[in-house]
Amino acid sequence: MMNIYVHTSFEESERNYLREAAPDAHFHWRQDLPKAEHFQRFCEAEICIGNIRPEWIPQSQQLRWLCLESIGFDQYLSLDWPILGKQVQMTHLKGFFAIAGAESALANILVLYRKIDHLARLQIQHEWMGGRIRKELETLYQKRVLILGPGAIGQRLKQLLVPFECEVTMFGRRPSNADITTLDELDAALPTCEVLVNILPGTPATTGLLDRHRLGLLSSEAIFVNIGRGTAVDESALIEYLNNGHIKGCVADVTIQEPLPADHPAWDCPNLLLTQHSAGGDAGERSRKVIRFVENLERYRSGNPLLNIADVEKGY
Amino acid sequence: MMNIYVHTSFEESERNYLREAAPDAHFHWRQDLPKAEHFQRFCEAEICIGNIRPEWIPQSQQLRWLCLESIGFDQYLSLDWPILGKQVQMTHLKGFFAIAGAESALANILVLYRKIDHLARLQIQHEWMGGRIRKELETLYQKRVLILGPGAIGQRLKQLLVPFECEVTMFGRRPSNADITTLDELDAALPTCEVLVNILPGTPATTGLLDRHRLGLLSSEAIFVNIGRGTAVDESALIEYLNNGHIKGCVADVTIQEPLPADHPAWDCPNLLLTQHSAGGDAGERSRKVIRFVENLERYRSGNPLLNIADVEKGY
Repeated sequence: MMNIYVHTSFEESERNYLREAAPDAHFHWRQDLPKAEHFQRFCEAEICIGNIRPEWIPQSQQLRWLCLESIGFDQYLSLDWPILGKQVQMTHLKGFFAIAGAESALANILVLYRKIDHLARLQIQHEWMGGRIRKELETLYQKRVLILGPGAIGQRLKQLLVPFECEVTMFGRRPSNADITTLDELDAALPTCEVLVNILPGTPATTGLLDRHRLGLLSSEAIFVNIGRGTAVDESALIEYLNNGHIKGCVADVTIQEPLPADHPAWDCPNLLLTQHSAGGDAGERSRKVIRFVENLERYRSGNPLLNIADVEKGY
Repeated sequence: MMNIYVHTSFEESERNYLREAAPDAHFHWRQDLPKAEHFQRFCEAEICIGNIRPEWIPQSQQLRWLCLESIGFDQYLSLDWPILGKQVQMTHLKGFFAIAGAESALANILVLYRKIDHLARLQIQHEWMGGRIRKELETLYQKRVLILGPGAIGQRLKQLLVPFECEVTMFGRRPSNADITTLDELDAALPTCEVLVNILPGTPATTGLLDRHRLGLLSSEAIFVNIGRGTAVDESALIEYLNNGHIKGCVADVTIQEPLPADHPAWDCPNLLLTQHSAGGDAGERSRKVIRFVENLERYRSGNPLLNIADVEKGY
């Protein structure tokens, strides 16, 4: 009997889809179990669906496949994967969030340019600002956009920007899908970009990439959208630059601490919109996650190589 | 000496541009005049820049050209234009707001789908909703979009939607630029559209077009963005449908009353975002208005026909 520990919470319809796909498996649904049993059931499972705590993994003798429900797996990189990798395979949701992630990024850019976050807050006070706000508005048309992260979301965003006639520069590791690949080129591109979008994964190479110096290279007319990882950014410097007007506006979908503590200065920072790691999400994502798992389960059972193995060397 | 009454408020740089373009003209800037003198200076002017009160127009003997600073001129349609038209020409800003207007419309759609207005308001309370919001989010990808108003903004919006692979239906008067042209066809399209965008001008034909019956034809999964005119919509029915969930979400950039009174029920209506007639605006619009006026001024002085004469028969 194959034990599957399901960390992710699913609707009944999604659970039935899983049960039908693996009628001989025994599913342990975290959402049904008392907390004290979570770890024990996980340790009995050959397959785990969802992002359990990294420190659990080395404690299991049974785990063979960890099926993550995210694209990022930075929290698992500290594990001793060269050893664990032989015993446990880890898959992630590569490419899964391209459509919703790119739409979120574009939405965030347009929200900053059209000041819609500001208008949403004015509504609470029943405050009519009317025509006066128009002179603070901008358009994305023909702006210079610098995208950090040439993966599926970045490529999709580039497609969405085509009719805006933006001048798009892509920064990444490889010249095959990026226009610029070195830190010197990045530093040269930052002062003239008008829209900076970070979609880089959380890896040792991206941690602190947008430090105080690099954020300082941005023009005071530039806006910044971060849907990658909070760890890429020096948040103190970002908040300082937003407070003193050196950076015009920012949407931070990700922050170093999530959930963000209620006393964090980011909540009240002017011209900073927090979208609470919602980028990439959509109502259909869980059922699509189930479908993707079932596809891979068939490969697992027939001994074929799994799709979307997390590349722990590269970190994405 | 040509007298020009400037109703619009301009920055000094824009005023200098106007002065240089017409060094022999005498400009009367409303922003510099005591209120008691406004009407008198207007009556002395051959040209008026900006949207003065409609009832002033028949009282002037001097006015020959009214250069509006808007695309819409519905407030002037009640005048006796067949008579006035011989003496006074009226120009409007046809096509002027295409880029910013279409970006606003797209921004508003994406804001509703990504719930960014909701997230902006949560930020005030320092309230982390996090992953729970993801299952309420949608994407625009391949949605069915019905655009009412096939003018410059509608055409530009259609271009912006191309990479989203939406199924776009355009409603308008003429088959040359619209897919559907009759009210029967409109009624047939409403139940299946997922995104309804109104960009129609305010005319007798569009007033009340989206009445209680037509709004009721929308699916409860549909969202509605209105950047045309508030008069197109039965606002009581709209608010009722948003309150009872028959319509999922709405951005009203325009309302019947503007400014919206502080006690209007729209302010507190759930899933209604008010963007205060900001669509189409941008920081550069006044300088572009000046440039467009100067181009037409040269035609006026050389006796050539003016560009962008308001068609008072059609109303747009």
